Amino acid sequence: MRKEAPILQPSNNGDRYELTSPTAMPKAGGFLWNQKMMIQITCRGYATAQFMQPEPAKYAHAPNIEAKTFMQPEQNYYAHHPGRFVYIKDLETGQLFSAPYEPVRASLDRFVFSVGKSDVAWAVEHMGIRVEMVMGLPTHDVAELWTIKVTNISGRPRKISVTPYFPIGYMSWMNQSAEWNPDLVGVVASSVTPYQKATDYFKNKYLKDKTYFLCETPPDSWEASQEAFEGEGGLHNPSALQEPQLSNSDARYETPTAAVQYRVALEAAEDQEYRFMFGPAYDEAEIRTMRSRYLSKQAFVRTADEYAAYMERGRGCLRIETPDKELDNFVNNWLPRQVYYHGDVNRLTTDPQTRNYLQDNMGMNYIRPEVARGAFLKALSQQEANGSMPDGILLAEGAELKYINQIPHTDHCVWLPLTLDVYLGETGDYGLLKEPVRTENGDNFTVFERVSRAMDWLLKSRDERGLSYIAQGDWCDPMNMVGYKGKGVSGWLTLATAYALNLWADVCDHEGAADLANRYRAGAQDCNAAANKHLWDGDWFARGITDDGVVFGIKKDPEGRIWLNPQSFAILGGAASPQQIARILPQVDAQLTTPYGVLMCAPPFTKMREDIGRVTQKATGSAENGAVYNHAAVFYVYSLYQLGGQHDRAYTHLRQLLPGPSEADYRQRGQLPIYIPNYYRGGWREFPRTAGRSSQLFNTGTVSWAYRCVIEGLCGLRGEPDGLAIRPQLPSAWDAIKVTREFRGATFQLDIRRGDVSEVTVRIGEQVLPQPKVTDIKVGETYRLSVLVPK
Amino acid sequence: MRKEAPILQPSNNGDRYELTSPTAMPKAGGFLWNQKMMIQITCRGYATAQFMQPEPAKYAHAPNIEAKTFMQPEQNYYAHHPGRFVYIKDLETGQLFSAPYEPVRASLDRFVFSVGKSDVAWAVEHMGIRVEMVMGLPTHDVAELWTIKVTNISGRPRKISVTPYFPIGYMSWMNQSAEWNPDLVGVVASSVTPYQKATDYFKNKYLKDKTYFLCETPPDSWEASQEAFEGEGGLHNPSALQEPQLSNSDARYETPTAAVQYRVALEAAEDQEYRFMFGPAYDEAEIRTMRSRYLSKQAFVRTADEYAAYMERGRGCLRIETPDKELDNFVNNWLPRQVYYHGDVNRLTTDPQTRNYLQDNMGMNYIRPEVARGAFLKALSQQEANGSMPDGILLAEGAELKYINQIPHTDHCVWLPLTLDVYLGETGDYGLLKEPVRTENGDNFTVFERVSRAMDWLLKSRDERGLSYIAQGDWCDPMNMVGYKGKGVSGWLTLATAYALNLWADVCDHEGAADLANRYRAGAQDCNAAANKHLWDGDWFARGITDDGVVFGIKKDPEGRIWLNPQSFAILGGAASPQQIARILPQVDAQLTTPYGVLMCAPPFTKMREDIGRVTQKATGSAENGAVYNHAAVFYVYSLYQLGGQHDRAYTHLRQLLPGPSEADYRQRGQLPIYIPNYYRGGWREFPRTAGRSSQLFNTGTVSWAYRCVIEGLCGLRGEPDGLAIRPQLPSAWDAIKVTREFRGATFQLDIRRGDVSEVTVRIGEQVLPQPKVTDIKVGETYRLSVLVPK
Repeated sequence: MRKEAPILQPSNNGDRYELTSPTAMPKAGGFLWNQKMMIQITCRGYATAQFMQPEPAKYAHAPNIEAKTFMQPEQNYYAHHPGRFVYIKDLETGQLFSAPYEPVRASLDRFVFSVGKSDVAWAVEHMGIRVEMVMGLPTHDVAELWTIKVTNISGRPRKISVTPYFPIGYMSWMNQSAEWNPDLVGVVASSVTPYQKATDYFKNKYLKDKTYFLCETPPDSWEASQEAFEGEGGLHNPSALQEPQLSNSDARYETPTAAVQYRVALEAAEDQEYRFMFGPAYDEAEIRTMRSRYLSKQAFVRTADEYAAYMERGRGCLRIETPDKELDNFVNNWLPRQVYYHGDVNRLTTDPQTRNYLQDNMGMNYIRPEVARGAFLKALSQQEANGSMPDGILLAEGAELKYINQIPHTDHCVWLPLTLDVYLGETGDYGLLKEPVRTENGDNFTVFERVSRAMDWLLKSRDERGLSYIAQGDWCDPMNMVGYKGKGVSGWLTLATAYALNLWADVCDHEGAADLANRYRAGAQDCNAAANKHLWDGDWFARGITDDGVVFGIKKDPEGRIWLNPQSFAILGGAASPQQIARILPQVDAQLTTPYGVLMCAPPFTKMREDIGRVTQKATGSAENGAVYNHAAVFYVYSLYQLGGQHDRAYTHLRQLLPGPSEADYRQRGQLPIYIPNYYRGGWREFPRTAGRSSQLFNTGTVSWAYRCVIEGLCGLRGEPDGLAIRPQLPSAWDAIKVTREFRGATFQLDIRRGDVSEVTVRIGEQVLPQPKVTDIKVGETYRLSVLVPK
Repeated sequence: MRKEAPILQPSNNGDRYELTSPTAMPKAGGFLWNQKMMIQITCRGYATAQFMQPEPAKYAHAPNIEAKTFMQPEQNYYAHHPGRFVYIKDLETGQLFSAPYEPVRASLDRFVFSVGKSDVAWAVEHMGIRVEMVMGLPTHDVAELWTIKVTNISGRPRKISVTPYFPIGYMSWMNQSAEWNPDLVGVVASSVTPYQKATDYFKNKYLKDKTYFLCETPPDSWEASQEAFEGEGGLHNPSALQEPQLSNSDARYETPTAAVQYRVALEAAEDQEYRFMFGPAYDEAEIRTMRSRYLSKQAFVRTADEYAAYMERGRGCLRIETPDKELDNFVNNWLPRQVYYHGDVNRLTTDPQTRNYLQDNMGMNYIRPEVARGAFLKALSQQEANGSMPDGILLAEGAELKYINQIPHTDHCVWLPLTLDVYLGETGDYGLLKEPVRTENGDNFTVFERVSRAMDWLLKSRDERGLSYIAQGDWCDPMNMVGYKGKGVSGWLTLATAYALNLWADVCDHEGAADLANRYRAGAQDCNAAANKHLWDGDWFARGITDDGVVFGIKKDPEGRIWLNPQSFAILGGAASPQQIARILPQVDAQLTTPYGVLMCAPPFTKMREDIGRVTQKATGSAENGAVYNHAAVFYVYSLYQLGGQHDRAYTHLRQLLPGPSEADYRQRGQLPIYIPNYYRGGWREFPRTAGRSSQLFNTGTVSWAYRCVIEGLCGLRGEPDGLAIRPQLPSAWDAIKVTREFRGATFQLDIRRGDVSEVTVRIGEQVLPQPKVTDIKVGETYRLSVLVPK
């Protein structure tokens, strides 16, 4: 292992990352998806894959019966966790290792884990053998396409066995088996999805209950039984590999596995390449079709090209060149990819939370606004008769609200104006507001009317003091006991309601509905006044008031005394005066800022506070972790950019959202810089050993706002009804940046530098624009702009 | 390893079994319970424990989020499965092994796994060190009490480290941590049981969300983080054991574990004994109380004595001495223990299926009839207003019908007369029939009236042909699609209804209700006539008729053509004439008999038959396993004993219920002979490799009937209203047996031999009884009987 070299290297374009140690960041991995599946795979070879049929399902399972649950942060791995591995054995010496690293964990001579936007690859060297593994996905089907290439780099002839091992795991207590299928040239595992009620049979009947592992080249021997493969040797030294060949055992209500063995003699420098497919299927006919469609060298090449084109469609509307190369890499490649993922597949759920669905699609406005438009209409088509929004949006026929979506939250309406704002800004398509939307109730209103009804519902859903009821939660899920008796209120929601109302009042103005605009602005003022009266604690805004009248998130609270979200939204929604903001910001700095980001609240909770709610792993911030909740942190950044004049503060906290940039940061966070996780652990004073660790969970509403912060805040390129406004907010250490922005069918190339100007000045060629905004934008045009910002 | 010696040895009394190989039967284990918990532990050290609060919960978890499901058969184990282990390291050579066998899996010099009725123990020798481990339970609390003794048997001074490792696993996605508690001298892991709804908080609030591992003696170092303990070494060679001491790391939203290390110098022949406690708790105060109550040598001794006394209360009413020593061991020790387990804790569920609850308590009549009496009343107190019985009996406040108990089954009423029969026989307490029982409906009937109402419901719940509706299942759960449309009928249930009615008619006669007796006998005849008309297939009875009128379980069916249960109940209920029985028995022999028992049906199903129902791992007998369902097999045995004259056939199949008796049998079945499992795999022609394997699941309605078969069938000692009837049915190879039977407060010592008699002849002293029955039984008396049976 090269100890001196940095363990993490981006490619020249920043669109690949190479990790050269399997132990420095053991959970670090990459992820690929298409509209039917998603796979997350770690540098060491552990994988978590799910596909939609239409509910999320697995084709490679844990060794026991796992709970059906949502994706978990900080998933921990263990020897029998699902993964994709290949054992290499020297048939002359008996020496063994495995690629990429698990299960043998040998000390490798070379290890490279290479994550691209459309593939995941490894190159591993040990015992004079190089193993290269590449995984790709098709664009429209559920399957993994694996290339495994073995090269003799020892300089002398070698005899080795090559044994790909793809455990299938515990498929079903009702029925499971696996066997070799000589016609399909692979292991086919079969199961019956468990059910009890006869009616469920008809729901389950066409589930893909088979898992296949197909080989392009027939192997010399195979194994379908986990027990037979592993034997007494254990996964680090399987008994089956101590024999001349695998035992060709089937699995009969035993744990299925897929292992196949090739015995090869390689001359010096000779290589051998194998291709495999792994995935779920309904029956053998489907497996046969998948094999003929994909399992050849030509098909792999064609499929990889198609998939790269599919990813390219998500490349986003911004390219930047700044002094911060890591930021460039992230913003030009990975952030839009993560935004695209959210908008493309809606977290692979059939019932996304309404606030998530709206925000995820908000990001899609920067990539494919027509998708965001459709999502907005879909969400509104499920609006309740009273104007409120449901807790989740049902995307598939027969889908049901599950888990947290069965708990009443009161904030969903707030997100309508916040997210619509970006659609209108990016497209200028105010015509959307006139679209009629019919719901299942039978009522029929335009988009404009529906959002207005949602605003009316928010105004109505307040108590006698003018504060917003919280019911069993607002945006903060765990805060489920503040108002379950029907009286408690949310400080954040009151402030966020004001922000939403103000945004919507602007749209009303644009649409010529001055009365409505006045009504909503007055409502916003009322909310803000109520918040100032009941929730201003002298230096910051409180988080809420419980059913029993206890104000919390205030100075006298020993835990959770200050919360970030109310402060951000007091800035955004106008509740906080400049004087109040001047008191708030130092408090955020002093109490909430950490080396790993801005905490959601502090001090962290160490135990349940019964009148507030759950102490969870993230959002209410239990002592050991929780508090850098990036979705909250990004709103703070957004509020700073909206406030203006906070360039350094905003940049600092924007930067903290990303993993890195120093190697020490990466190691502490334990994640590649290819996505923003939903949280970093925050207990930095209490538990420095684990503080800063990434949740490893790339599902987060953070990303669309982070992209917005970069585009509209840092670069200052915000769509307005009549054009593109230009108000960059560069951190003071930067002298210049270059930006390419696609907007309403045109391309803007900006050269932004500091100059002797008192305000932002924009030139096209020699012409200085009267204000920092490009209007009358022509589709297909390229605008080359020179921008000067004050020194 | 002693290769030549048998791997399994019973103690002289048959009340312990010693297994001398950890690999011959890797899943073989023992189990202990009290009314609050149960633990099953394998010879290799893997354990599955659950406790009631009041729903079943765990204090040692898998490494991932396991589904909450019922107990699964043939549970498979994997490296990180919960278990209890101790690592021994030679500090001079660095050599490592673990006891009892996992996780290191070293080749041991000696291995003894010893299962007793009230403890589980190991003695393991390797590297000149002997490790003895003993696990016991308290009688009234939830905790494991562990003694670990280490002896230097190398003949020279040694320096070793002793590291008990009790993994705690993934406790909760909501919150989990673990740390060393110096006051309690142990690792305390904490978690929050996940929930979403505020109302669930109040249900969860007092759950025992902590797991503790306490040491009597403070260790030199400790580890609370699984990750830190294991490191890159893996469980077979943990990184923490490669350091001078454990790292004293806490776990912060990481997987908790408990490992403690003692560094000891042992002179030749010196030993060192340690005691530990492992279990769940609500808070530290409870842990402190548990520590002071149990964690000392004296307390361990006292607790073991109390627990042995608790087990002794379940010793049953029968002692036999026969030519079959394995049978003696099983019947005198293990079978009543398993019966006691069922009646004592009702499978540790809060909503046992009604048929299970009644049958499990039926067995309790042979041990503690007052418990069975209470259970019978409890079941009847949940009878529906229409006379039917619910699918499950709720035992705890707030309990709900779960899983299979939400599916309508139509057989529950049948079990009332079948199980009451034993209570009346054992106690002669017909007074029970006059007990009033009020239900939540408010209706109030005597036991006699309630059972009559249940019989009326059975009579009514038949179609126009007189066949019993099956709805979504009868006793055979997976047969869920025969009648879900409301038309399909169960052949078995029709025949079982006749049996129940006939039994109940006898009780009616006893109670002087001749009209009722006639009505029920006529009903039974009607059922039998209908079965003969619609279901007799020439050589056996069909299993049922689907909603669409398809008769199944008949000659033309390629799969499932003959089912065992209809034949057994046709014999018991009188549907089968002697001529029919003469046709049935050879068909059972030819089609259903296997080396591992009598199949439930044959040929096994290889795929779903949509008009019948699920293909599951056991009951409808999918190809790879399923078909020797012991609960069905024992009814066949019972029907043969009731029929009479089938002594050899009955004995053969009774014997097959037990694991063994040859070593080859044990190895194939993979289970110690300490319980009857719910099934053995049956695909003996199709899949001989796995046929015969034990389910490893000791929850089964089989055991009460097996005990009844031995007592009332083989020994022929059946309670009748006026006394104890004596009609032994010895297999032809046996010349004599000795039996001690406790019955209605008296003791019967029987010397049973073959003699020149044409029928059973009983003598007390010199007095020959007029009939083979002892009447006028006196409490406290010992009756010494000489019994002659025909040669």
